[in-house]
Amino acid sequence: MASNDQAASSGTGPGGLAPGSAQIGVTGLAVMGRNLARNLARHGYVTAVHNRTSARTRALVEEFGGEGSFVPAETAEEFVASLERPRRIVVMVKAGDPTDAVIREFAALLEPGDIIVDAGNAHFADTRRRERELRERGIHFVGSGVSGGEEGALHGPSIMPGGSAESYEALAPMLEAISAKADDGSPCVAHIGPDGAGHFVKMVHNGIEYADMQLIAESYDLLRHALDLPPAEIAEVFRTWNRGRLDSYLIEITAQVLAHTDAATGKPFVDVVLDQAEQKGTGRWTVQTALDLGVPVSGIAEAVFARAVSGHADLRAAARELPGPTPTLLDSAAYDRFADDVEQALYASKIVAYAQGFHQIAAGSAEYGWDIDQGRVAAIWRAGCIIRAAFLDRIRAAFDNRPDLPTLLVDDHFRSALDGAQSAWRRVVSTAAELGVPTPGFAAALAYYDSLRAERLPAALVQGLRDFFGAHTYHRADRPGTFHTLWATKDREEVTPS
Amino acid sequence: MASNDQAASSGTGPGGLAPGSAQIGVTGLAVMGRNLARNLARHGYVTAVHNRTSARTRALVEEFGGEGSFVPAETAEEFVASLERPRRIVVMVKAGDPTDAVIREFAALLEPGDIIVDAGNAHFADTRRRERELRERGIHFVGSGVSGGEEGALHGPSIMPGGSAESYEALAPMLEAISAKADDGSPCVAHIGPDGAGHFVKMVHNGIEYADMQLIAESYDLLRHALDLPPAEIAEVFRTWNRGRLDSYLIEITAQVLAHTDAATGKPFVDVVLDQAEQKGTGRWTVQTALDLGVPVSGIAEAVFARAVSGHADLRAAARELPGPTPTLLDSAAYDRFADDVEQALYASKIVAYAQGFHQIAAGSAEYGWDIDQGRVAAIWRAGCIIRAAFLDRIRAAFDNRPDLPTLLVDDHFRSALDGAQSAWRRVVSTAAELGVPTPGFAAALAYYDSLRAERLPAALVQGLRDFFGAHTYHRADRPGTFHTLWATKDREEVTPS
Repeated sequence: MASNDQAASSGTGPGGLAPGSAQIGVTGLAVMGRNLARNLARHGYVTAVHNRTSARTRALVEEFGGEGSFVPAETAEEFVASLERPRRIVVMVKAGDPTDAVIREFAALLEPGDIIVDAGNAHFADTRRRERELRERGIHFVGSGVSGGEEGALHGPSIMPGGSAESYEALAPMLEAISAKADDGSPCVAHIGPDGAGHFVKMVHNGIEYADMQLIAESYDLLRHALDLPPAEIAEVFRTWNRGRLDSYLIEITAQVLAHTDAATGKPFVDVVLDQAEQKGTGRWTVQTALDLGVPVSGIAEAVFARAVSGHADLRAAARELPGPTPTLLDSAAYDRFADDVEQALYASKIVAYAQGFHQIAAGSAEYGWDIDQGRVAAIWRAGCIIRAAFLDRIRAAFDNRPDLPTLLVDDHFRSALDGAQSAWRRVVSTAAELGVPTPGFAAALAYYDSLRAERLPAALVQGLRDFFGAHTYHRADRPGTFHTLWATKDREEVTPS
Repeated sequence: MASNDQAASSGTGPGGLAPGSAQIGVTGLAVMGRNLARNLARHGYVTAVHNRTSARTRALVEEFGGEGSFVPAETAEEFVASLERPRRIVVMVKAGDPTDAVIREFAALLEPGDIIVDAGNAHFADTRRRERELRERGIHFVGSGVSGGEEGALHGPSIMPGGSAESYEALAPMLEAISAKADDGSPCVAHIGPDGAGHFVKMVHNGIEYADMQLIAESYDLLRHALDLPPAEIAEVFRTWNRGRLDSYLIEITAQVLAHTDAATGKPFVDVVLDQAEQKGTGRWTVQTALDLGVPVSGIAEAVFARAVSGHADLRAAARELPGPTPTLLDSAAYDRFADDVEQALYASKIVAYAQGFHQIAAGSAEYGWDIDQGRVAAIWRAGCIIRAAFLDRIRAAFDNRPDLPTLLVDDHFRSALDGAQSAWRRVVSTAAELGVPTPGFAAALAYYDSLRAERLPAALVQGLRDFFGAHTYHRADRPGTFHTLWATKDREEVTPS
């Protein structure tokens, strides 16, 4: 642990402890911040707590003071004075302007070597800016992804800190203590890389989470429509899947949500919920960033779009009467194998979604010089976070086995899984198209798979068209150089533009 | 035409004409700027011309001086002095910093009431900023989309100007003169709306162009693989299609590109072009902006992603050996109808891509208060631009018939086309999945169609999951309010969060 410089302070602080005695502080005590503070205190750390309105600070100490040593502070000055040096301040406020305001307030009170951790969902570009600004003043800024929701924050989240190696060293023991632990006992936290690396990886985590949920939703929808199963029986299917290779938190809670009956109506819960999915923005950021990086993340994009479609009540109302196939049940041979087919399609599509997400992490790492260890990322997602799954141990193994793996699809395990799954996957996409059940995620994943493995893509035609109408030039497959065809001339001579 | 204030100037300018005598000026004389200047001069406008390096200016006058009245200027000051007032300056330089630099240089020389037209491919957000800054100085800034490539610039482009109504009035006669003309004779130019509206609409035009080309590429790829047709025979299929409802510039030039034989090898041209499609960014901007607006543009996104996939040579090389179906020809009944099926799938997917693009225009218009007339947009895309097509007259008619059409899909004509196409469309998506031919565009379009018309979407399950792991709450279909289920409790009581 870092050195404890109390020489300059004396007397007793507001919490009954000497100023400079708190090992870490948390400011912003809404549910996530409060739970992180409790998690730290429960692990034996003297934890300073502060909130803009101090009623929340008092409430925390009153209700949970017995869980550990809290040092409540009424003001920012008191809060800072209560911390040992280097000071470690965890900021857990709204992303955007509120985060900037809090950083500004505290930075003015800190000294070189102190550490500010932003544990909110900041955009990684903001984190890069803040890290640069604070670095110039000698203050370490750690943009850290924290996944696991309220329960994770309290009992053990997956933590993705970026920033300097020095700041990580000063935080590591605490972060390791409060983080989730994988089945092998290792803590779900690792130094992701400099400046925005942590928030970038958390963003992609959320994008993958969107894709995961969309694929689950399509699986449910297919079983509902193609097999005419009630939600409670589909819950049973998911429970079965959860005992196999799909074993994961999201599959487990899907079974629980589908099995739940609405008390007010006696109907399946999933039938009384308004079918308009909301979003907070990290999925959108993932896709926008992937577009900047030139990384195809169609599985994540379709998940974001699917939520957007669901929310356009006006368009849906207008389009509800559009013609579609008369829903018919599958014939009995197809019926019997369909649930298994869907499991295969779900697993294969999930591999693609993760392959796309990890491709984005590799591209971000290369673009920003972060040197991210993809195997470590998979390792710390194995527990604590929303996408935690047995699957992630397979991904960890794939990257440990070959750190420069160009795409997850070609890892031996996943390649073999795709080999086994692809016939069923194709049947499912095909059946969905025929039945009129929308499966944008499954279809996009399959198209990506078939695009990547194609010997030749019709991109050659696209380049030809671009050269025709815009003189955008093209390359040839048989020799180097840049070429343009004089399309408007009779001979259509090929020239090399100067 | 605007008033001609020459009182302050006297003598003879560099082009042998009196200062203040040029009716419009073009600065930036690369091929697009040069052709726009020639187009203006050919229509009888005295056109001042200027370029950073004046060799280009001299070359233009030497080579094309006979086409009309040009006033060459060596310096920015000479250029500005040569213009009648209000001065009309068309800037045709690279988007981004070069555009800002040129605007800065000229704005310092202009007077209130003068007009700067940015005819490059600026991002609409930059155009909004520039318009605001120049408006404060009394200068009109017109961000204008110009589509049609080099040939269009010379012979008649589709022009999409934004900015003030007053500036449009001062430009309209010239723009109408040089623009393309639709079959009914009307000029392909209209005042799109304030500030960034013109560049926004041009951006979406390009996004749609990406989707159009991707759908054409998939059609070609399917015919190639499922029917084993050589490119020259597929060219014939496209030529046939071009005589029907798909009649369009892109289908026409597709036939030409596919029919072209590479002189060097004697092979089909499309087989010697490197199959890695490039992009300049407007497709990406379209998708990124759509994500901000919450508009699902999956057809455009898949087109952008398809180009990205094609360019990842490393991933493709690694993935080439991934397992896929053994390519087999269709049975003879399916074989015979397949080309017709693909035409149906192409038409239906095209309707979806345009529906998504126009949805984005409506959403942008609402967000920024532009009051864009979608029927007018369709009307001015009928000629001059890359996506010009008979189809656009159908879209114009749809919006003229019902300006508040919630989506193109429910217009009578398109609804009926979709009705006729959907069985074939489903067969094509299904066949592509089974054959292993990637059709991300067709599949995304069909999934969008089936999502919009779905009575219930599995978004309800997504909301249930979000409530379970993140207490994100949900709405009910049967009564208003915001609800949360206490998932961690035994009774799973539903509560109304405060």
